[in-house]
Amino acid sequence: MPIITLTTDFGTKDHFVGAVKGSIYNELKEVRVVDISHQITPFSITETAYILKNAYRHFPAGTIHIVGVDSEISQENKPIAIQMDGQYFISCDNGILSMITNEINPEKIVEITIQNSEDNNFAILGVFIKVACHIARGGMLEVIGKRITDIKTIYEIQPQVNEEQNQIVGSIIYIDNFGNVISNIAKSIFHNIGKGRTFEIVARNYKFTKIYEQYNDIVDFSVPVDKRQDDGKRLALFNSSDFLEISMYRSNLKTVGGASSLLGLNYRDNITVRFL
Amino acid sequence: MPIITLTTDFGTKDHFVGAVKGSIYNELKEVRVVDISHQITPFSITETAYILKNAYRHFPAGTIHIVGVDSEISQENKPIAIQMDGQYFISCDNGILSMITNEINPEKIVEITIQNSEDNNFAILGVFIKVACHIARGGMLEVIGKRITDIKTIYEIQPQVNEEQNQIVGSIIYIDNFGNVISNIAKSIFHNIGKGRTFEIVARNYKFTKIYEQYNDIVDFSVPVDKRQDDGKRLALFNSSDFLEISMYRSNLKTVGGASSLLGLNYRDNITVRFL
Amino acid sequence: MPIITLTTDFGTKDHFVGAVKGSIYNELKEVRVVDISHQITPFSITETAYILKNAYRHFPAGTIHIVGVDSEISQENKPIAIQMDGQYFISCDNGILSMITNEINPEKIVEITIQNSEDNNFAILGVFIKVACHIARGGMLEVIGKRITDIKTIYEIQPQVNEEQNQIVGSIIYIDNFGNVISNIAKSIFHNIGKGRTFEIVARNYKFTKIYEQYNDIVDFSVPVDKRQDDGKRLALFNSSDFLEISMYRSNLKTVGGASSLLGLNYRDNITVRFL
Repeated sequence: MPIITLTTDFGTKDHFVGAVKGSIYNELKEVRVVDISHQITPFSITETAYILKNAYRHFPAGTIHIVGVDSEISQENKPIAIQMDGQYFISCDNGILSMITNEINPEKIVEITIQNSEDNNFAILGVFIKVACHIARGGMLEVIGKRITDIKTIYEIQPQVNEEQNQIVGSIIYIDNFGNVISNIAKSIFHNIGKGRTFEIVARNYKFTKIYEQYNDIVDFSVPVDKRQDDGKRLALFNSSDFLEISMYRSNLKTVGGASSLLGLNYRDNITVRFL
Repeated sequence: MPIITLTTDFGTKDHFVGAVKGSIYNELKEVRVVDISHQITPFSITETAYILKNAYRHFPAGTIHIVGVDSEISQENKPIAIQMDGQYFISCDNGILSMITNEINPEKIVEITIQNSEDNNFAILGVFIKVACHIARGGMLEVIGKRITDIKTIYEIQPQVNEEQNQIVGSIIYIDNFGNVISNIAKSIFHNIGKGRTFEIVARNYKFTKIYEQYNDIVDFSVPVDKRQDDGKRLALFNSSDFLEISMYRSNLKTVGGASSLLGLNYRDNITVRFL
Repeated sequence: MPIITLTTDFGTKDHFVGAVKGSIYNELKEVRVVDISHQITPFSITETAYILKNAYRHFPAGTIHIVGVDSEISQENKPIAIQMDGQYFISCDNGILSMITNEINPEKIVEITIQNSEDNNFAILGVFIKVACHIARGGMLEVIGKRITDIKTIYEIQPQVNEEQNQIVGSIIYIDNFGNVISNIAKSIFHNIGKGRTFEIVARNYKFTKIYEQYNDIVDFSVPVDKRQDDGKRLALFNSSDFLEISMYRSNLKTVGGASSLLGLNYRDNITVRFL
């Protein structure tokens, strides 16, 4: 029996997540439901795409991902299901999945045509769960929808390369639990454009001329532990999702602050890489 | 093996939820434990009832719900277990379950008489888990308690209808993750009293003369997408739990605000429906 | 198949927790993953130890605990696995586990020597999961590491007893979801030193001369319910983890405040017990 995951902006206080899980277990006793996130900023397409893209690839083949963000069904926001990279994604056609299909060719896309029996304003409960359980039972996508070839595409998270091929202008697409600021500049584009040249990275007033391998590479281990002053040092690195990230070593958003709060960096701000 | 759910005000940082789950799995290897909510406002009977009522009915028959809110056992706050609507509820007799038994006749109520071996100030761990596992193994309620017929009843969440039958005065019982403000006025009472008459809904200074079917019914889809100004429009609708709700379209409590913050509506404030 | 638990400072918004769970289920279809906490203050060794110590002992024998706090691997922060009290703990050697081994003799300690294939800055995903799944399959610790006898020990959370044996100076090691302030003074040391003498407990400007058995022992049940004024009363008690705790009855950090905010007590502040 495959896993069903949930990625929503419902929060974990309200009854919604419990209701969704109850409904799934009501249909399928043996399935396993795994939370990816319920803390997404309400209606944030970009955050959802970032989180889902970085989580889904760790799941087993055949996993079914329900996306409950901006999921009220309308004439412009139709429910779709996509088979892609060996897994399944159920969402409204609001651009979220296009940020994954930009990189990975979908094997099959359907517009979901089965109807919601009730609960018009809680689409996920009605339609998405039915579709997920259908797939989990081994059902074909064609049974619950009609094949389509295009989905609504959102391009905003692509970094721009200038004509001279010596500059990449990216933007901040995510700020994580530690206040690390994550750009849309992937390791691959950095290396493809940079070709080993020296560089400087500019974020607001701050410059970085080195990209670290891991956070604690900034630590000088030859200094005795009680004399070190590494906490709060800023650094650039490629994070575990291979995106260029600005970080402060051992930062804490709830107390001293993190890269986002201390460097004044926020969603959509530019991060620029200049090759020299 | 039935599901055991948890609804508590423990939060998810402390060790309590982990300890409860560990204890349950220690007794019953194969059971499935599902979180309904751990973010309930400490000691809030009303929030708990609202969340539990809207979540439990989606679960399979036989599910066992543990309620860990205001659950310190005392001479006035005795542990009870109720069989109702095909499911089981374990709680202290503090009024929470009365908000469900108001609507649904319980099949059986027992005052739990088995003793807590230790941990006097963490009742749920001692007594509730033992009872839940007993029920999960197919045990009878009579074995762990003595039959009673009455529980402590709290009536405060019933809306009031005036003598002329042309006004319902409800109050706000819940504010959800999106800042939607939810009243205790159910669709059924609205239709029973209103009988199709025109109406106005008053919440603080705001009037609503229409009840929408779903949130995006407020959108004028004939306007081109980039010209629309629907975000932040206020609307009244019956939510997926069939309660009258005041909402702002695509609101976000963490940034621009939601109906609660922008309209200045809070717990216990009145929502009035006048039929004309 | 044993349970694998997760205790991290990752928060629940980011993709990390989902990615970890996906990876585990990808290796072991049938294992059960249980969250202990993901809300630990970033890098807080002390909070982690407190939460883990109080949660783990409720889990079945053979449970495997992954600790993802301060878990970036470095020459000074090596991954270790410990078999202790019939369970398994996987962590970096940063002092967290020493706060458990202080009290319970480990059966076996290994320094993990298997390599991380990728993701250098997300150690837990690479190494810890591999080790956890190896143990879950019944593998020996010696296969994934080399036996060691010592781990990095942190002593800071031990209370101090004076020479005259009439005073214990402890400090606040945890503040829970209700604002209860928890000291490192265990019931056992209190009784061993106190030997039944009268005492006073001093926390900032506040004195307590009684230790309650449970929170609602402060309530005078002879007073009619609607005349009671117990909410907000302060009290000292041994909590369910047997540590001395300062509490305010039915406090709520989000509204009226709790012991921590109202009494001005914070992490590392002293709590002193004087025996008379």
